[in-house]
Amino acid sequence: MKLGIVGGGQLARMMIGPAVELGIEVSVLGETEGSSAALAVSRVGDYRDRDTVLAFADTVDAVTFDHEHVPQDILRALVARGVRVHPGPDALLYAQDKLLMRERLGGLGLPLPDWAAVSSAAEVAAFLADHGGRAVLKTPRGGYDGKGVRIVTDAAESAEWLEAFDRLLIEEVVPFTRELAQLVARRPSGEIVAWPVVETIQRGGVCAEVIAPAPASAGRIADVAEQIAVTVAESLGVTGVLAVELFQTDDDRILVNELAMRPHNSGHWSMDGSTTGQFEQHIRAVLDLPLGATGCRDPWTVMINILGGPAEGGFTAPYARALADQPTVKFHGYGKESRPGRKVGHVTAGGDDLDDVVYRAHAAAAYFD
Amino acid sequence: MKLGIVGGGQLARMMIGPAVELGIEVSVLGETEGSSAALAVSRVGDYRDRDTVLAFADTVDAVTFDHEHVPQDILRALVARGVRVHPGPDALLYAQDKLLMRERLGGLGLPLPDWAAVSSAAEVAAFLADHGGRAVLKTPRGGYDGKGVRIVTDAAESAEWLEAFDRLLIEEVVPFTRELAQLVARRPSGEIVAWPVVETIQRGGVCAEVIAPAPASAGRIADVAEQIAVTVAESLGVTGVLAVELFQTDDDRILVNELAMRPHNSGHWSMDGSTTGQFEQHIRAVLDLPLGATGCRDPWTVMINILGGPAEGGFTAPYARALADQPTVKFHGYGKESRPGRKVGHVTAGGDDLDDVVYRAHAAAAYFD
Repeated sequence: MKLGIVGGGQLARMMIGPAVELGIEVSVLGETEGSSAALAVSRVGDYRDRDTVLAFADTVDAVTFDHEHVPQDILRALVARGVRVHPGPDALLYAQDKLLMRERLGGLGLPLPDWAAVSSAAEVAAFLADHGGRAVLKTPRGGYDGKGVRIVTDAAESAEWLEAFDRLLIEEVVPFTRELAQLVARRPSGEIVAWPVVETIQRGGVCAEVIAPAPASAGRIADVAEQIAVTVAESLGVTGVLAVELFQTDDDRILVNELAMRPHNSGHWSMDGSTTGQFEQHIRAVLDLPLGATGCRDPWTVMINILGGPAEGGFTAPYARALADQPTVKFHGYGKESRPGRKVGHVTAGGDDLDDVVYRAHAAAAYFD
Repeated sequence: MKLGIVGGGQLARMMIGPAVELGIEVSVLGETEGSSAALAVSRVGDYRDRDTVLAFADTVDAVTFDHEHVPQDILRALVARGVRVHPGPDALLYAQDKLLMRERLGGLGLPLPDWAAVSSAAEVAAFLADHGGRAVLKTPRGGYDGKGVRIVTDAAESAEWLEAFDRLLIEEVVPFTRELAQLVARRPSGEIVAWPVVETIQRGGVCAEVIAPAPASAGRIADVAEQIAVTVAESLGVTGVLAVELFQTDDDRILVNELAMRPHNSGHWSMDGSTTGQFEQHIRAVLDLPLGATGCRDPWTVMINILGGPAEGGFTAPYARALADQPTVKFHGYGKESRPGRKVGHVTAGGDDLDDVVYRAHAAAAYFD
């Protein structure tokens, strides 16, 4: 069996090891030479070019993705050609367009922040007036890691985006006590499994740290989070890994923030912390192989992202000192050139005592600051 | 950093995932197209050809091995060229030649079976006469997985090998209650770590099953096993992973059977069962990076080899049923064509209860019989 991955970023890279171990051939369509997943790149080309993607698909048995940006018309051309594409275009639509996602999840009765589609400054102003003069404005497409999202307090701040998009998504600023993420994996044939809900800590709109499972989540919070993600996956026909980012509010409601239909930063902990890591599970799911157990290997696992700093070196320079200082921590490098704010790796610690686990993960990550 | 591996078998293959995660580039000199480590093969050539190996070494920062068969003159040419080679020729010598190994370990005062170097049928007959008429005859070079090893009861049985080799190794048939293996990893700069001693179960001269840690080994047996392996690694200057195969005798002595200077079948359990798997550790060691923790992730881990059967299919045919039946078991496929008796993969189970762990590992492996 040969799996094709469109996109050569770190998510594709982190599928390489599990694919090799599962005995599955893997082949990547990379954007550039020397991408993060370079080892498995069999051809370099533009994922927005129909012929490039179709020719790549002809070399593999099933296609999945490193990102959600392959245009719908190309996804549909793949399906029309008989290619096994997971997730498929009908599901990916809702990961590609946040307005369609809000409309669809609202239709399913899932708990969402207050939101509206706006296409004029007047509508933005009206939403602001109804929500204490402060709201979150989002472009429907093209956002990631804090891009395409801004807090607005004045309708004038929406002008630039209103010119670029027909409609924008505007949402209440949710009074959340913390953010959670719920990952599930689903096969085309319907089998679905959930990992424990995790707590995610964002800095500057970027996932910085994940605690698995989310502290004090056992019971209702875990059940609600899982039920939401299962409902989304089944209703939207998601195949592969689905990540649902959630808000836990002051009054302990759980609201859906964002969706990602691929392995997700909030699931990196599972590579070391779960019986089945999200990258292995994604591969199993998209190939319609039976899914693996999703239990935790340790009572607590903490994952911290390594971001490129202003200096050169990034993940590699202080590496030996970090390894020496934290022999129990697992280090993951993405083979990417370091640039300020760019995700270049992550570290994971696990153990029985959360304070100790947090300490070891931070101690390891601190070498890369 | 770019690591070069000479040899494209499953040991090279299983270094791919850890190298990718450590953020290290990996490049393999494979024997053939489509070898087990094909994903990382950058060139195909003969490891017995000096120019091929030297040219390959020029493309990487350090060289290690999938096997111990690279000739000494080529290893020494690499060193003379300034290539970082781990393990180096002075150490590998003792993994390549069992007679030299016995002489050297004997000189170190390590506990060995009774042995002798023999070069005539008369000497074989004399050894047989002194050891109850039964002995183990081994070719000094070229043996693996039961090849180059036979039980003899008559000196005439040594004739063919005596023609092919100047000297043979003959050993007592050790009255062992079980076989153990002790793995350590050592860096060029001297740091050394040991995994817990494991029990290995051989069938037909091939490692069939490993239990980690070896039951009832805590205390003296574990200490002696570790001390033996540390002594071997330090005295012989081994770098990377060293596996020492051991006999535990009826009277609870621990005797050295064989050495392997590379990741070893008896260490496959550590990929899933230890904080640091042997392939990750080997990479860290040969690149002189600080070593990782070697504790067990579960009280018990059991590894079972999957051998190719008489029918086609091997690792892949019953795969989906095995995955479905044993969601907690980890499956490792080597991407090799199935041939009777050929190692094509392994499975690992872990948990608190040894009976249950053994059951799950066997239940998974049984799908491939």
